[in-house]
Amino acid sequence: VSAGEAAWLAAVVSGLGAAVSGEGVLRGIGDDAAVLALPAGESLIATVDMVVEGQHFERRGPRAATPADIGWRALAVSQSDIAAMGGRPLWALSSLGVPDGMTAAEVEALCAGLAEAAAAYGTAVVGGNLARNPERLVLDVTVLGAARRPLSRAGARPGDLVGVTGRLGAAAAGLALLRGGERLRAACGAAAGECLQAQRRPQPRVAEGLALGALGPQGVRAMCDVSDGLAIDLARLCGGTLGAVLWREALPVPAAVRAAAACAGEDALQWALHGGEDYELLCAVAPEAASAAPRAVARAGGALHLIGEFTATPGELRLAARRGGRGGPLPASGWDPFA
Amino acid sequence: VSAGEAAWLAAVVSGLGAAVSGEGVLRGIGDDAAVLALPAGESLIATVDMVVEGQHFERRGPRAATPADIGWRALAVSQSDIAAMGGRPLWALSSLGVPDGMTAAEVEALCAGLAEAAAAYGTAVVGGNLARNPERLVLDVTVLGAARRPLSRAGARPGDLVGVTGRLGAAAAGLALLRGGERLRAACGAAAGECLQAQRRPQPRVAEGLALGALGPQGVRAMCDVSDGLAIDLARLCGGTLGAVLWREALPVPAAVRAAAACAGEDALQWALHGGEDYELLCAVAPEAASAAPRAVARAGGALHLIGEFTATPGELRLAARRGGRGGPLPASGWDPFA
Repeated sequence: VSAGEAAWLAAVVSGLGAAVSGEGVLRGIGDDAAVLALPAGESLIATVDMVVEGQHFERRGPRAATPADIGWRALAVSQSDIAAMGGRPLWALSSLGVPDGMTAAEVEALCAGLAEAAAAYGTAVVGGNLARNPERLVLDVTVLGAARRPLSRAGARPGDLVGVTGRLGAAAAGLALLRGGERLRAACGAAAGECLQAQRRPQPRVAEGLALGALGPQGVRAMCDVSDGLAIDLARLCGGTLGAVLWREALPVPAAVRAAAACAGEDALQWALHGGEDYELLCAVAPEAASAAPRAVARAGGALHLIGEFTATPGELRLAARRGGRGGPLPASGWDPFA
Repeated sequence: VSAGEAAWLAAVVSGLGAAVSGEGVLRGIGDDAAVLALPAGESLIATVDMVVEGQHFERRGPRAATPADIGWRALAVSQSDIAAMGGRPLWALSSLGVPDGMTAAEVEALCAGLAEAAAAYGTAVVGGNLARNPERLVLDVTVLGAARRPLSRAGARPGDLVGVTGRLGAAAAGLALLRGGERLRAACGAAAGECLQAQRRPQPRVAEGLALGALGPQGVRAMCDVSDGLAIDLARLCGGTLGAVLWREALPVPAAVRAAAACAGEDALQWALHGGEDYELLCAVAPEAASAAPRAVARAGGALHLIGEFTATPGELRLAARRGGRGGPLPASGWDPFA
């Protein structure tokens, strides 16, 4: 390793700290490839997500994220994909395209944030790569996991209930507060903190996903995470053969999100339906598991809300005020990086 | 999937073609994560490599690579890392940062090149991600493999022979010919084609790596690939506890490389020692396996050359004219992206 590369590698290694080792890591960073022991009887699951400065986050200006938040987020969004399969995110490989002017200290802080998310959800960082991307920071994180019975997006049936973990709209509220500047954040008071934290440090629902996966095919038939927005991700679970109706009153929109919406002159419901980046789990719960599924998630320390029902009408999403209502059409719109 | 993203995804899917399925692929592209079946009794191996336009390749100007060559290369360099562990590169996940002005047809051609490398070495593309990186094309490819007994960089002993597969210096010759322009390439005649091909389409030595791994710890004790240059990668195999002496006359420098060097007024030996990007396998062969190892690689359709010997002098690299000579110091220099 030459002097130029060595300084960067030292920053990465220092930032990652203890996150380089963990369950099943036979050989980690430092060889041509990592060597990993998959738990017996489990399937390997693998996902990758690339985030780019200016598109997924900012490093400068009023909406700037800290290096540590950028690192946390880049890993958390892929841990969430593993959680959405009912798996454990065991290992990560992380590539970093370092822009001109980014210091070794910033690289170290970014890796420390990544290591925090790794430690929080039982992930070891077993590989990585550094390159130069002069104009902007790029992170690409692959996460490998293990699951006994990986869930899929396909499998929902008419009459299944729509389940969602946690809360909706907080990440979109946080983004609006970032965009709105210091004055808006001050005006929102305490509500701002919760929403900004949801945007900066998404919490992949790993324990919830494991609890839902453990219910078996008679409990949860299909699952994904809410990355692009509730409506568009729900349309993906419908998969061209089903429709769904959501019950507005059942949507878990926290008080802080409603308060932030009131402050910002925005609509909390739109954030919850189309905002995206909540990284909650969205699933099809068999009617027989309508009590068992929320109980299982509660035992895992989370919350599962039943917010609607799958129907037999292909491609039709509707929003009703409450259970039993017919409601009106719900557009399957969300966040589109190429729009 | 919205209209904006859908057009790009269609190009990717069309380019990848049949490469999306393969051995052990239980579920490929299209869900939150891929589901993979690791062969029983084998360890999982994982590696990632990021390549960036302007640093690792060019899309414009006299040194421009075609989209298909860029795709081939981005996968091949990571397949080579798996080969260096004695493993089979079973699965790949590929992230693409698409720059402004790159067309869907170019994305499709790039994915088709990636699919060619996938098919050539038994790899299925099971995941991916698209983002926008306005100023330049970025590819980040993770490759997952399986090996019964993964080799490591560590383990060489004094008296072990230095083995290298294939040929050295061809990729550096190709790069010099790209830099030298059309006139130099024309002057070099037939030699140019072979060297340019080595630069554009590196051939990971998967079959060779499997054959070397199968010899067991009494045959090959340590292995890596030649990515940054023979001398610097050899220094890594020495790992701070050993030294090595190389035998100049034994280095496999093909006639085309010597011809290109003569044409370009460069030194073929320097290309072979410090040029990098050859993606050959470099290994420590136990003295008892000095005949068996080259025979095993020949049976696999390749070639293994014994080009030197590990010594007990930590950090000392030397270059001698031939076996038995003491020679002079060899600097452990190579390609450094951060220099």
